[in-house]
Amino acid sequence: MTLLYEGKAKQLFMTDDDKVLRLVYKNDATAFNGEKHDVLQGKGELNNAISVLFFEVLEAEGVQTHFIKKISDTEQLVRPTRIIPIEVVVRNITAGSLARRLGWEEGKSLPEPIVEWYYKDDALGDPLVNDDHIAALGVAKTEELEEMRMRALHVNKILLDLCHKANLLLVDFKLEFGVLEDGTLLLADEVSPDTCRFWDAKTKEKLDKDIYRYGLGSLQAGYENILSRIGGVVHD
Amino acid sequence: MTLLYEGKAKQLFMTDDDKVLRLVYKNDATAFNGEKHDVLQGKGELNNAISVLFFEVLEAEGVQTHFIKKISDTEQLVRPTRIIPIEVVVRNITAGSLARRLGWEEGKSLPEPIVEWYYKDDALGDPLVNDDHIAALGVAKTEELEEMRMRALHVNKILLDLCHKANLLLVDFKLEFGVLEDGTLLLADEVSPDTCRFWDAKTKEKLDKDIYRYGLGSLQAGYENILSRIGGVVHD
Ligand SMILES: Nc1ncnc2c1ncn2[C@@H]1O[C@H](COP(=O)(O)OP(=O)(O)O)[C@@H](O)[C@H]1O
Ligand SMILES: Nc1ncnc2c1ncn2[C@@H]1O[C@H](COP(=O)(O)OP(=O)(O)O)[C@@H](O)[C@H]1O
Ligand SMILES: [Mg+2]
Ligand SMILES: [Mg+2]
Repeated sequence: MTLLYEGKAKQLFMTDDDKVLRLVYKNDATAFNGEKHDVLQGKGELNNAISVLFFEVLEAEGVQTHFIKKISDTEQLVRPTRIIPIEVVVRNITAGSLARRLGWEEGKSLPEPIVEWYYKDDALGDPLVNDDHIAALGVAKTEELEEMRMRALHVNKILLDLCHKANLLLVDFKLEFGVLEDGTLLLADEVSPDTCRFWDAKTKEKLDKDIYRYGLGSLQAGYENILSRIGGVVHD
Repeated sequence: MTLLYEGKAKQLFMTDDDKVLRLVYKNDATAFNGEKHDVLQGKGELNNAISVLFFEVLEAEGVQTHFIKKISDTEQLVRPTRIIPIEVVVRNITAGSLARRLGWEEGKSLPEPIVEWYYKDDALGDPLVNDDHIAALGVAKTEELEEMRMRALHVNKILLDLCHKANLLLVDFKLEFGVLEDGTLLLADEVSPDTCRFWDAKTKEKLDKDIYRYGLGSLQAGYENILSRIGGVVHD
Protein backbone atom coordinates (compact mmCIF):
# COMPACT_ATOMS: atom_id res chain seq x y z
CA MET A 1 0.00 0.00 0.00
CA THR A 2 1.21 3.49 -0.81
CA LEU A 3 3.26 5.25 1.87
CA LEU A 4 1.71 8.73 2.11
CA TYR A 5 4.10 10.23 4.64
CA GLU A 6 6.99 9.06 6.75
CA GLY A 7 7.78 11.18 9.79
CA LYS A 8 10.31 10.80 12.53
CA ALA A 9 8.19 8.38 14.62
CA LYS A 10 5.36 7.14 12.40
CA GLN A 11 4.37 6.16 8.89
CA LEU A 12 1.03 6.86 7.21
CA PHE A 13 -0.23 4.46 4.54
CA MET A 14 -3.25 4.68 2.24
CA THR A 15 -5.79 1.83 2.37
CA ASP A 16 -8.42 0.58 -0.14
CA ASP A 17 -10.84 2.98 1.53
CA ASP A 18 -10.03 6.65 0.89
CA LYS A 19 -11.68 7.49 4.22
CA VAL A 20 -9.13 5.39 6.12
CA LEU A 21 -5.37 5.63 6.69
CA ARG A 22 -3.08 3.11 8.36
CA LEU A 23 -0.84 4.70 10.98
CA VAL A 24 2.28 2.69 11.86
CA TYR A 25 4.38 3.45 14.93
CA LYS A 26 8.11 3.01 14.32
CA ASN A 27 10.80 2.20 16.90
CA ASP A 28 12.71 5.40 16.10
CA ALA A 29 13.44 7.89 18.83
CA THR A 30 14.65 11.37 17.88
CA ALA A 31 15.37 14.49 19.91
CA PHE A 32 16.71 18.04 19.52
CA ASN A 33 15.14 18.46 16.10
CA GLY A 34 16.63 15.19 14.79
CA GLU A 35 20.18 15.72 16.10
CA LYS A 36 19.86 12.64 18.33
CA HIS A 37 18.46 9.47 16.76
CA ASP A 38 18.18 5.85 17.89
CA VAL A 39 16.10 2.77 17.22
CA LEU A 40 14.59 1.43 20.44
CA GLN A 41 13.09 -2.09 20.36
CA GLY A 42 9.44 -2.10 21.48
CA LYS A 43 8.94 1.69 21.42
CA GLY A 44 6.47 1.61 18.51
CA GLU A 45 4.33 -1.02 20.20
CA LEU A 46 4.29 0.90 23.49
CA ASN A 47 3.35 4.22 21.87
CA ASN A 48 0.65 2.59 19.77
CA ALA A 49 -0.88 0.94 22.85
CA ILE A 50 -0.72 4.12 24.95
CA SER A 51 -2.04 6.41 22.22
CA VAL A 52 -4.94 4.00 21.60
CA LEU A 53 -5.82 4.06 25.32
CA PHE A 54 -5.88 7.87 25.36
CA PHE A 55 -7.81 8.24 22.11
CA GLU A 56 -10.46 5.74 23.31
CA VAL A 57 -10.95 7.72 26.51
CA LEU A 58 -11.04 11.04 24.63
CA GLU A 59 -13.62 9.69 22.16
CA ALA A 60 -15.71 8.37 25.06
CA GLU A 61 -15.60 11.86 26.59
CA GLY A 62 -16.92 13.42 23.37
CA VAL A 63 -13.67 14.69 21.81
CA GLN A 64 -13.77 14.27 18.03
CA THR A 65 -10.59 12.49 16.93
CA HIS A 66 -9.11 10.84 13.83
CA PHE A 67 -8.94 7.47 15.65
CA ILE A 68 -10.84 4.50 14.18
CA LYS A 69 -9.32 1.34 15.69
CA LYS A 70 -6.22 -0.56 16.63
CA ILE A 71 -5.36 -3.30 14.11
CA SER A 72 -2.03 -4.68 15.35
CA ASP A 73 0.65 -4.13 17.97
CA THR A 74 2.12 -1.20 16.05
CA GLU A 75 -0.75 -0.16 13.78
CA GLN A 76 -4.04 1.70 13.99
CA LEU A 77 -6.57 2.97 11.47
CA VAL A 78 -7.29 6.71 11.44
CA ARG A 79 -9.23 9.18 9.33
CA PRO A 80 -7.22 11.15 6.78
CA THR A 81 -7.15 14.89 7.50
CA ARG A 82 -5.45 18.03 6.28
CA ILE A 83 -3.14 18.63 9.26
CA ILE A 84 -3.00 22.24 10.49
CA PRO A 85 0.77 22.81 10.85
CA ILE A 86 0.47 24.27 14.33
CA GLU A 87 1.62 22.26 17.34
CA VAL A 88 -0.71 23.07 20.21
CA VAL A 89 1.13 22.79 23.52
CA VAL A 90 -0.69 22.80 26.86
CA ARG A 91 1.33 23.20 30.04
CA ASN A 92 0.32 22.60 33.66
CA ILE A 93 3.79 22.56 35.24
CA THR A 94 6.93 24.42 34.13
CA ALA A 95 9.45 22.37 32.14
CA GLY A 96 11.51 22.33 28.97
CA SER A 97 11.42 25.35 26.66
CA LEU A 98 8.90 27.23 28.84
CA ALA A 99 11.28 27.14 31.80
CA ARG A 100 14.14 28.25 29.54
CA ARG A 101 12.10 31.01 27.83
CA LEU A 102 10.95 32.65 31.07
CA GLY A 103 13.91 31.78 33.30
CA TRP A 104 11.76 29.64 35.60
CA GLU A 105 12.86 26.53 37.44
CA GLU A 106 11.26 23.25 36.35
CA GLY A 107 8.42 21.68 38.30
CA LYS A 108 6.49 24.82 39.29
CA SER A 109 2.70 24.38 39.09
CA LEU A 110 1.04 27.01 36.91
CA PRO A 111 -2.06 28.72 38.36
CA GLU A 112 -3.77 28.34 34.95
CA PRO A 113 -2.74 26.11 32.04
CA ILE A 114 -0.64 27.86 29.39
CA VAL A 115 -1.51 27.20 25.74
CA GLU A 116 1.14 27.84 23.09
CA TRP A 117 1.23 27.61 19.30
CA TYR A 118 4.37 26.38 17.56
CA TYR A 119 4.67 26.55 13.79
CA LYS A 120 5.39 22.97 12.65
CA ASP A 121 8.48 23.49 10.50
CA ASP A 122 11.60 21.44 11.22
CA ALA A 123 13.85 23.77 9.18
CA LEU A 124 12.82 26.72 11.39
CA GLY A 125 13.03 24.64 14.59
CA ASP A 126 9.26 24.82 15.26
CA PRO A 127 9.19 28.48 16.42
CA LEU A 128 6.69 29.83 18.94
CA VAL A 129 4.11 31.93 17.12
CA ASN A 130 1.10 34.06 18.03
CA ASP A 131 -2.31 34.49 16.40
CA ASP A 132 -1.10 37.31 14.14
CA HIS A 133 1.82 35.22 12.86
CA ILE A 134 -0.59 32.37 12.11
CA ALA A 135 -2.91 34.74 10.24
CA ALA A 136 0.04 36.02 8.18
CA LEU A 137 1.19 32.43 7.53
CA GLY A 138 -2.37 31.68 6.41
CA VAL A 139 -2.34 28.23 8.02
CA ALA A 140 -5.37 28.51 10.33
CA LYS A 141 -8.41 30.76 10.64
CA THR A 142 -9.12 32.76 13.80
CA GLU A 143 -12.15 30.54 14.53
CA GLU A 144 -10.04 27.42 14.10
CA LEU A 145 -7.51 28.76 16.62
CA GLU A 146 -10.29 29.49 19.12
CA GLU A 147 -11.70 26.02 18.58
CA MET A 148 -8.26 24.41 18.93
CA ARG A 149 -7.64 26.27 22.17
CA MET A 150 -10.98 25.15 23.64
CA ARG A 151 -10.47 21.56 22.52
CA ALA A 152 -6.92 21.48 23.86
CA LEU A 153 -8.10 22.70 27.27
CA HIS A 154 -10.88 20.09 27.24
CA VAL A 155 -8.35 17.37 26.40
CA ASN A 156 -6.20 18.70 29.25
CA LYS A 157 -9.07 18.29 31.74
CA ILE A 158 -9.66 14.70 30.66
CA LEU A 159 -5.98 13.74 30.69
CA LEU A 160 -5.37 15.47 34.03
CA ASP A 161 -8.16 13.40 35.54
CA LEU A 162 -6.75 10.15 34.11
CA CYS A 163 -3.22 11.01 35.23
CA HIS A 164 -4.37 11.96 38.70
CA LYS A 165 -5.95 8.53 39.12
CA ALA A 166 -2.73 6.94 37.83
CA ASN A 167 -0.53 8.87 40.29
CA LEU A 168 1.04 10.75 37.42
CA LEU A 169 1.68 14.46 36.93
CA LEU A 170 0.73 15.64 33.45
CA VAL A 171 3.41 18.32 33.02
CA ASP A 172 2.65 19.31 29.42
CA PHE A 173 1.71 17.85 26.06
CA LYS A 174 1.54 18.61 22.34
CA LEU A 175 -1.51 18.10 20.13
CA GLU A 176 -2.06 18.32 16.39
CA PHE A 177 -5.41 18.98 14.78
CA GLY A 178 -6.56 18.11 11.28
CA VAL A 179 -9.48 19.24 9.16
CA LEU A 180 -11.89 17.03 7.17
CA GLU A 181 -13.14 18.08 3.74
CA ASP A 182 -16.35 19.45 5.27
CA GLY A 183 -14.31 21.61 7.69
CA THR A 184 -14.74 19.41 10.79
CA LEU A 185 -11.80 19.73 13.16
CA LEU A 186 -10.41 16.43 14.52
CA LEU A 187 -7.75 15.76 17.11
CA ALA A 188 -5.14 13.86 15.07
CA ASP A 189 -1.58 12.52 15.38
CA GLU A 190 -0.77 10.86 18.72
CA VAL A 191 -1.01 11.24 22.49
CA SER A 192 1.88 9.29 23.99
CA PRO A 193 4.99 9.67 26.16
CA ASP A 194 6.69 10.95 22.98
CA THR A 195 4.39 13.97 23.01
CA CYS A 196 3.45 14.36 26.70
CA ARG A 197 5.60 14.87 29.80
CA PHE A 198 4.55 12.47 32.58
CA TRP A 199 6.17 12.51 36.01
CA ASP A 200 5.57 10.15 38.91
CA ALA A 201 3.39 12.21 41.27
CA LYS A 202 5.43 11.26 44.35
CA THR A 203 9.05 10.90 43.21
CA LYS A 204 8.75 13.30 40.21
CA GLU A 205 10.60 10.65 38.19
CA LYS A 206 10.37 11.38 34.44
CA LEU A 207 8.53 8.60 32.57
CA ASP A 208 8.42 10.17 29.09
CA LYS A 209 10.74 10.98 26.17
CA ASP A 210 12.88 13.18 28.44
CA ILE A 211 14.39 9.82 29.58
CA TYR A 212 15.79 9.55 26.05
CA ARG A 213 16.52 13.29 25.55
CA TYR A 214 18.64 13.50 28.69
CA GLY A 215 19.90 9.88 28.90
CA LEU A 216 18.11 9.14 32.18
CA GLY A 217 17.72 5.36 31.77
CA SER A 218 15.47 2.98 29.86
CA LEU A 219 12.82 4.72 27.76
CA GLN A 220 10.95 1.45 27.39
CA ALA A 221 10.79 0.98 31.18
CA GLY A 222 9.22 4.44 31.54
CA TYR A 223 6.72 3.84 28.75
CA GLU A 224 5.81 0.38 30.17
CA ASN A 225 5.16 2.11 33.47
CA ILE A 226 2.83 4.68 31.81
CA LEU A 227 1.03 1.94 29.86
CA SER A 228 0.36 -0.18 32.92
CA ARG A 229 -0.74 2.74 35.09
CA ILE A 230 -3.04 4.33 32.48
CA GLY A 231 -4.24 0.87 31.40
CA GLY A 232 -5.07 0.09 35.02
CA VAL A 233 -7.13 3.26 35.40
CA VAL A 234 -8.93 2.88 32.06
CA HIS A 235 -9.85 -0.77 32.57
CA ASP A 236 -11.03 -0.16 36.12
CA MET B 1 18.68 65.39 41.33
CA THR B 2 18.30 61.68 42.05
CA LEU B 3 18.93 59.32 39.15
CA LEU B 4 16.00 56.92 39.24
CA TYR B 5 17.07 54.62 36.46
CA GLU B 6 19.84 54.45 33.89
CA GLY B 7 19.15 52.33 30.83
CA LYS B 8 21.15 51.65 27.72
CA ALA B 9 20.06 54.83 25.92
CA LYS B 10 18.43 57.11 28.48
CA GLN B 11 18.51 58.30 32.09
CA LEU B 12 15.50 59.08 34.26
CA PHE B 13 15.84 61.69 37.02
CA MET B 14 13.41 62.74 39.73
CA THR B 15 12.40 66.42 39.90
CA ASP B 16 11.01 68.62 42.71
CA ASP B 17 7.56 67.62 41.48
CA ASP B 18 6.73 63.95 42.12
CA LYS B 19 4.43 64.05 39.09
CA VAL B 20 7.32 64.87 36.79
CA LEU B 21 10.46 63.02 35.67
CA ARG B 22 13.35 64.33 33.60
CA LEU B 23 14.24 62.00 30.73
CA VAL B 24 17.76 62.45 29.33
CA TYR B 25 18.84 60.95 26.02
CA LYS B 26 22.41 59.66 26.02
CA ASN B 27 24.77 59.30 23.07
CA ASP B 28 25.15 55.56 23.67
CA ALA B 29 24.29 53.09 20.94
CA THR B 30 23.94 49.41 21.80
CA ALA B 31 22.89 46.37 19.81
CA PHE B 32 22.55 42.61 20.07
CA ASN B 33 21.48 42.77 23.71
CA GLY B 34 24.44 44.96 24.70
CA GLU B 35 27.16 42.97 22.89
CA LYS B 36 27.93 45.95 20.64
CA HIS B 37 28.32 49.38 22.30
CA ASP B 38 29.52 52.79 21.11
CA VAL B 39 29.15 56.45 21.98
CA LEU B 40 27.94 58.43 18.98
CA GLN B 41 28.17 62.23 19.19
CA GLY B 42 24.82 63.89 18.63
CA LYS B 43 22.69 60.74 18.87
CA GLY B 44 20.97 61.82 22.11
CA GLU B 45 20.00 65.17 20.67
CA LEU B 46 18.64 63.61 17.49
CA ASN B 47 16.57 61.00 19.33
CA ASN B 48 15.21 63.57 21.77
CA ALA B 49 14.14 65.83 18.89
CA ILE B 50 12.57 63.00 16.88
CA SER B 51 10.78 61.44 19.86
CA VAL B 52 9.38 64.87 20.83
CA LEU B 53 8.03 65.34 17.28
CA PHE B 54 6.28 61.96 17.36
CA PHE B 55 4.87 62.37 20.87
CA GLU B 56 3.48 65.82 20.00
CA VAL B 57 1.70 64.40 16.97
CA LEU B 58 0.42 61.39 18.95
CA GLU B 59 -0.91 63.64 21.74
CA ALA B 60 -2.59 65.87 19.13
CA GLU B 61 -4.26 62.76 17.72
CA GLY B 62 -5.64 61.83 21.13
CA VAL B 63 -3.13 59.18 22.23
CA GLN B 64 -2.49 59.46 25.98
CA THR B 65 1.28 59.60 26.54
CA HIS B 66 3.79 60.32 29.32
CA PHE B 67 5.18 63.32 27.41
CA ILE B 68 5.02 66.77 29.04
CA LYS B 69 7.55 68.97 27.23
CA LYS B 70 11.02 69.31 25.78
CA ILE B 71 13.36 71.30 28.06
CA SER B 72 16.73 71.10 26.29
CA ASP B 73 18.46 69.51 23.31
CA THR B 74 18.75 66.17 25.09
CA GLU B 75 16.08 66.41 27.79
CA GLN B 76 12.32 66.23 28.14
CA LEU B 77 9.88 66.10 31.04
CA VAL B 78 7.58 63.08 31.29
CA ARG B 79 5.08 61.65 33.74
CA PRO B 80 6.36 58.90 36.02
CA THR B 81 4.64 55.55 35.42
CA ARG B 82 4.93 51.93 36.47
CA ILE B 83 6.26 50.50 33.22
CA ILE B 84 4.61 47.26 32.08
CA PRO B 85 7.64 45.10 31.20
CA ILE B 86 6.21 44.05 27.83
CA GLU B 87 7.68 45.44 24.64
CA VAL B 88 4.83 45.86 22.17
CA VAL B 89 6.09 45.40 18.63
CA VAL B 90 3.99 46.33 15.59
CA ARG B 91 5.13 45.21 12.16
CA ASN B 92 3.98 46.32 8.71
CA ILE B 93 6.82 44.88 6.63
CA THR B 94 8.93 41.77 7.32
CA ALA B 95 12.36 42.41 8.85
CA GLY B 96 14.66 41.39 11.69
CA SER B 97 13.57 38.66 14.07
CA LEU B 98 10.19 38.17 12.35
CA ALA B 99 11.91 37.31 9.07
CA ARG B 100 14.26 34.94 10.92
CA ARG B 101 11.48 33.33 13.01
CA LEU B 102 9.27 32.50 10.05
CA GLY B 103 11.93 32.04 7.37
CA TRP B 104 10.66 34.99 5.35
CA GLU B 105 12.75 37.36 3.27
CA GLU B 106 12.95 40.97 4.47
CA GLY B 107 10.86 43.70 2.90
CA LYS B 108 7.61 41.79 2.31
CA SER B 109 4.48 43.87 3.06
CA LEU B 110 2.17 42.16 5.54
CA PRO B 111 -1.55 42.06 4.62
CA GLU B 112 -2.37 43.05 8.23
CA PRO B 113 -0.05 44.48 10.88
CA ILE B 114 1.41 41.87 13.25
CA VAL B 115 1.46 42.72 16.96
CA GLU B 116 3.93 40.87 19.20
CA TRP B 117 4.66 40.91 22.93
CA TYR B 118 8.25 40.54 24.15
CA TYR B 119 8.98 40.13 27.84
CA LYS B 120 11.39 42.97 28.73
CA ASP B 121 14.20 41.05 30.41
CA ASP B 122 17.76 41.51 29.16
CA ALA B 123 19.01 38.36 30.94
CA LEU B 124 16.46 36.27 29.01
CA GLY B 125 17.09 38.12 25.74
CA ASP B 126 13.58 39.68 25.64
CA PRO B 127 11.74 36.49 24.63
CA LEU B 128 8.56 36.47 22.54
CA VAL B 129 5.60 35.67 24.80
CA ASN B 130 1.86 35.14 24.41
CA ASP B 131 -1.10 36.24 26.53
CA ASP B 132 -0.95 33.09 28.69
CA HIS B 133 2.75 33.61 29.46
CA ILE B 134 2.00 37.20 30.48
CA ALA B 135 -0.84 36.05 32.74
CA ALA B 136 1.50 33.52 34.38
CA LEU B 137 4.21 36.19 34.75
CA GLY B 138 1.55 38.41 36.34
CA VAL B 139 2.88 41.55 34.63
CA ALA B 140 -0.26 42.69 32.79
CA LYS B 141 -3.99 42.03 33.00
CA THR B 142 -5.97 40.69 30.07
CA GLU B 143 -7.77 44.04 29.70
CA GLU B 144 -4.45 45.89 29.72
CA LEU B 145 -3.18 43.66 26.90
CA GLU B 146 -6.33 44.32 24.86
CA GLU B 147 -5.96 48.05 25.49
CA MET B 148 -2.23 47.96 24.59
CA ARG B 149 -3.00 46.15 21.34
CA MET B 150 -5.67 48.69 20.37
CA ARG B 151 -3.45 51.65 21.28
CA ALA B 152 -0.49 50.18 19.43
CA LEU B 153 -2.58 49.74 16.27
CA HIS B 154 -3.86 53.31 16.64
CA VAL B 155 -0.29 54.59 17.00
CA ASN B 156 0.60 52.56 13.91
CA LYS B 157 -2.12 54.28 11.85
CA ILE B 158 -0.88 57.73 12.90
CA LEU B 159 2.80 56.94 12.30
CA LEU B 160 2.06 55.24 8.96
CA ASP B 161 0.30 58.40 7.81
CA LEU B 162 3.20 60.63 8.89
CA CYS B 163 5.78 58.33 7.31
CA HIS B 164 3.82 58.12 4.09
CA LYS B 165 3.89 61.92 3.80
CA ALA B 166 7.63 61.85 4.55
CA ASN B 167 8.36 59.26 1.85
CA LEU B 168 9.33 56.75 4.52
CA LEU B 169 8.32 53.14 5.01
CA LEU B 170 7.46 52.37 8.64
CA VAL B 171 8.69 48.76 8.74
CA ASP B 172 8.12 48.06 12.45
CA PHE B 173 8.43 49.68 15.86
CA LYS B 174 8.50 48.94 19.60
CA LEU B 175 6.33 50.66 22.20
CA GLU B 176 6.31 50.57 26.00
CA PHE B 177 3.30 51.40 28.12
CA GLY B 178 3.18 52.55 31.71
CA VAL B 179 0.40 52.77 34.28
CA LEU B 180 -0.45 55.74 36.53
CA GLU B 181 -1.52 55.19 40.13
CA ASP B 182 -5.20 55.47 39.11
CA GLY B 183 -4.71 52.73 36.49
CA THR B 184 -4.56 55.03 33.44
CA LEU B 185 -2.44 53.52 30.67
CA LEU B 186 0.03 55.90 29.01
CA LEU B 187 2.32 55.42 26.05
CA ALA B 188 5.77 55.87 27.63
CA ASP B 189 9.46 55.50 26.72
CA GLU B 190 10.43 56.75 23.25
CA VAL B 191 9.50 56.67 19.58
CA SER B 192 12.70 57.19 17.61
CA PRO B 193 14.95 55.54 15.02
CA ASP B 194 16.36 53.54 17.95
CA THR B 195 12.97 51.85 18.36
CA CYS B 196 11.44 52.04 14.86
CA ARG B 197 12.66 50.76 11.50
CA PHE B 198 12.36 53.47 8.84
CA TRP B 199 13.30 52.84 5.20
CA ASP B 200 13.37 55.33 2.37
CA ALA B 201 10.19 54.56 0.42
CA LYS B 202 11.93 54.61 -2.97
CA THR B 203 15.46 53.29 -2.41
CA LYS B 204 14.60 51.14 0.67
CA GLU B 205 17.71 52.61 2.34
CA LYS B 206 17.74 51.93 6.08
CA LEU B 207 17.63 55.17 8.12
CA ASP B 208 17.35 53.69 11.63
CA LYS B 209 19.43 51.81 14.21
CA ASP B 210 20.03 48.99 11.71
CA ILE B 211 22.69 51.36 10.26
CA TYR B 212 24.58 50.84 13.53
CA ARG B 213 23.62 47.16 14.03
CA TYR B 214 24.91 46.13 10.62
CA GLY B 215 27.61 48.82 10.10
CA LEU B 216 25.89 50.41 7.09
CA GLY B 217 27.30 53.93 7.46
CA SER B 218 26.64 57.00 9.59
CA LEU B 219 23.84 56.55 12.11
CA GLN B 220 23.70 60.31 12.65
CA ALA B 221 23.21 60.94 8.92
CA GLY B 222 20.24 58.54 8.91
CA TYR B 223 18.70 60.09 12.02
CA GLU B 224 19.22 63.65 10.65
CA ASN B 225 17.39 62.52 7.53
CA ILE B 226 14.45 61.19 9.60
CA LEU B 227 14.36 64.37 11.70
CA SER B 228 14.26 66.69 8.72
CA ARG B 229 11.67 64.63 6.83
CA ILE B 230 9.33 64.14 9.79
CA GLY B 231 9.94 67.72 10.94
CA GLY B 232 9.04 68.93 7.47
CA VAL B 233 5.74 67.04 7.48
CA VAL B 234 4.82 68.02 11.05
CA HIS B 235 5.56 71.73 10.56
CA ASP B 236 3.71 71.83 7.26
N1 LIG C 1 -5.12 11.80 10.69
C1 LIG C 1 -4.04 12.30 10.07
N2 LIG C 1 -4.15 12.75 8.80
C2 LIG C 1 -3.06 13.24 8.15
N3 LIG C 1 -1.84 13.37 8.70
C3 LIG C 1 -1.69 12.96 9.97
C4 LIG C 1 -2.77 12.41 10.72
N4 LIG C 1 -2.31 12.12 11.97
C5 LIG C 1 -1.01 12.48 11.98
N5 LIG C 1 -0.63 12.98 10.79
C6 LIG C 1 0.72 13.47 10.42
O1 LIG C 1 1.55 12.37 10.23
C7 LIG C 1 2.84 12.63 10.71
C8 LIG C 1 3.11 11.64 11.83
O2 LIG C 1 4.39 11.22 11.81
P1 LIG C 1 5.51 11.69 12.81
O3 LIG C 1 6.55 10.65 12.70
O4 LIG C 1 4.97 12.06 14.15
O5 LIG C 1 5.93 13.04 12.02
P2 LIG C 1 6.83 14.26 12.43
O6 LIG C 1 8.24 13.84 12.18
O7 LIG C 1 6.34 15.34 11.50
O8 LIG C 1 6.52 14.55 13.89
C9 LIG C 1 2.84 14.03 11.30
O9 LIG C 1 3.37 14.95 10.36
C10 LIG C 1 1.37 14.30 11.50
O10 LIG C 1 1.07 15.69 11.36
N1 LIG D 1 7.35 57.53 31.88
C1 LIG D 1 8.16 56.59 32.36
N2 LIG D 1 8.07 56.19 33.65
C2 LIG D 1 8.88 55.23 34.14
N3 LIG D 1 9.83 54.60 33.42
C3 LIG D 1 9.96 54.94 32.12
C4 LIG D 1 9.15 55.95 31.52
N4 LIG D 1 9.50 56.05 30.23
C5 LIG D 1 10.49 55.15 30.02
N5 LIG D 1 10.77 54.48 31.15
C6 LIG D 1 11.79 53.41 31.33
O1 LIG D 1 13.06 54.04 31.36
C7 LIG D 1 14.01 53.25 30.69
C8 LIG D 1 14.52 54.05 29.53
O2 LIG D 1 15.83 53.89 29.36
P1 LIG D 1 16.46 52.97 28.22
O3 LIG D 1 17.85 53.44 28.13
O4 LIG D 1 15.63 52.93 26.98
O5 LIG D 1 16.37 51.57 28.99
P2 LIG D 1 16.54 50.07 28.48
O6 LIG D 1 18.01 49.81 28.50
O7 LIG D 1 15.77 49.29 29.51
O8 LIG D 1 15.93 50.01 27.09
C9 LIG D 1 13.30 52.01 30.18
O9 LIG D 1 13.50 50.91 31.05
C10 LIG D 1 11.84 52.43 30.19
O10 LIG D 1 10.99 51.33 30.41
MG1 LIG E 1 5.33 13.76 15.32
MG1 LIG F 1 15.00 51.30 25.82
